[in-house]
Amino acid sequence: MENSGVLLVISAPSGAGKLTLLNEVRARKVDQIVTTVSATTRPPRTGEQEGIDYYFLERSVFEARRDRGEFVEWAEVHGNLYGTLNDELDRCLDTGKDVILELDVQGMQNLRRQRDDVVSIFLMPPSLEELERRLRSRGTDDNEVIELRLKNARHEIAERHAFDYIVVNDKIESAASDMEAIIRAERCRAERQP
Amino acid sequence: MENSGVLLVISAPSGAGKLTLLNEVRARKVDQIVTTVSATTRPPRTGEQEGIDYYFLERSVFEARRDRGEFVEWAEVHGNLYGTLNDELDRCLDTGKDVILELDVQGMQNLRRQRDDVVSIFLMPPSLEELERRLRSRGTDDNEVIELRLKNARHEIAERHAFDYIVVNDKIESAASDMEAIIRAERCRAERQP
Repeated sequence: MENSGVLLVISAPSGAGKLTLLNEVRARKVDQIVTTVSATTRPPRTGEQEGIDYYFLERSVFEARRDRGEFVEWAEVHGNLYGTLNDELDRCLDTGKDVILELDVQGMQNLRRQRDDVVSIFLMPPSLEELERRLRSRGTDDNEVIELRLKNARHEIAERHAFDYIVVNDKIESAASDMEAIIRAERCRAERQP
Repeated sequence: MENSGVLLVISAPSGAGKLTLLNEVRARKVDQIVTTVSATTRPPRTGEQEGIDYYFLERSVFEARRDRGEFVEWAEVHGNLYGTLNDELDRCLDTGKDVILELDVQGMQNLRRQRDDVVSIFLMPPSLEELERRLRSRGTDDNEVIELRLKNARHEIAERHAFDYIVVNDKIESAASDMEAIIRAERCRAERQP
């Protein structure tokens, strides 16, 4: 993995503020973080370009590659398959830039079995009380959904020690600085140096 | 090691700029880095206080503790013994602040056998040519001494992969930011979190 970018995987319970944090980190490091191109079975829309917007694959091809374990993640949405190819990670990392993947605990652990260059971060809410407050203040979910999200969050938080790093998202600026520090430190890791 | 400071060990070949770098890092993080108090067999000078300037030990006590392996490093200078007690590291780290020790490769590896919380950094000159240029520009050493320092530097650099991190001291500001990032990232390590 010499001279290549850092492959970060981030997981967070719903309401921990992952999207806001990633927007902040991407804004700070706009030239250093590269976005992977997903593969999809959805037909291209007007103007969409192969290899830039998506890799457009026939369903049979997508499924064959998926069954050969070539995807690090995949999902079916509205009848179309979407996923990230392991090859695509290498293509991005070989540019020397960093990649941030959003995966759940299982996804992170699967990826770790495939690759030895995974740097994993679990994003923690400051407390379960604060998480509940954030979920309720969204005003989008009813009580039952909120209770389910909190239950899932407790399970996910219980597995946080499966990750390399734990970042507490108390203040977004501080959590973004933690992520920047982790990327910078990982680039100094001896095993990355020639 | 929960909620305790980060124990950093830094090694560098002569001329790599370790002292300037550490001054810069200590200036940036003046409230976060604590200086360990050394033990010595030298008698106290006027105004020197036990436990603040030094731990003043009888020679027999120093030697007995040294022989029991209680020191992480020690040396004899002008007939007096000086050293850093392992206990002292714990006292400092328990305050939640970080400690930076300067040790050579052997010293770092000895410490690692005693403790599992060592974070080690090897400070690299940008190149051997630049190292030679720096050593010569000091104007303090004759050619023979410079050749010896360069020979030692080559040996030390060959062992850099024994360290957790390698920081290249090309620009002092950038190397100091690398060290700050390493400390910040290490504080986010999952095994440090409750």
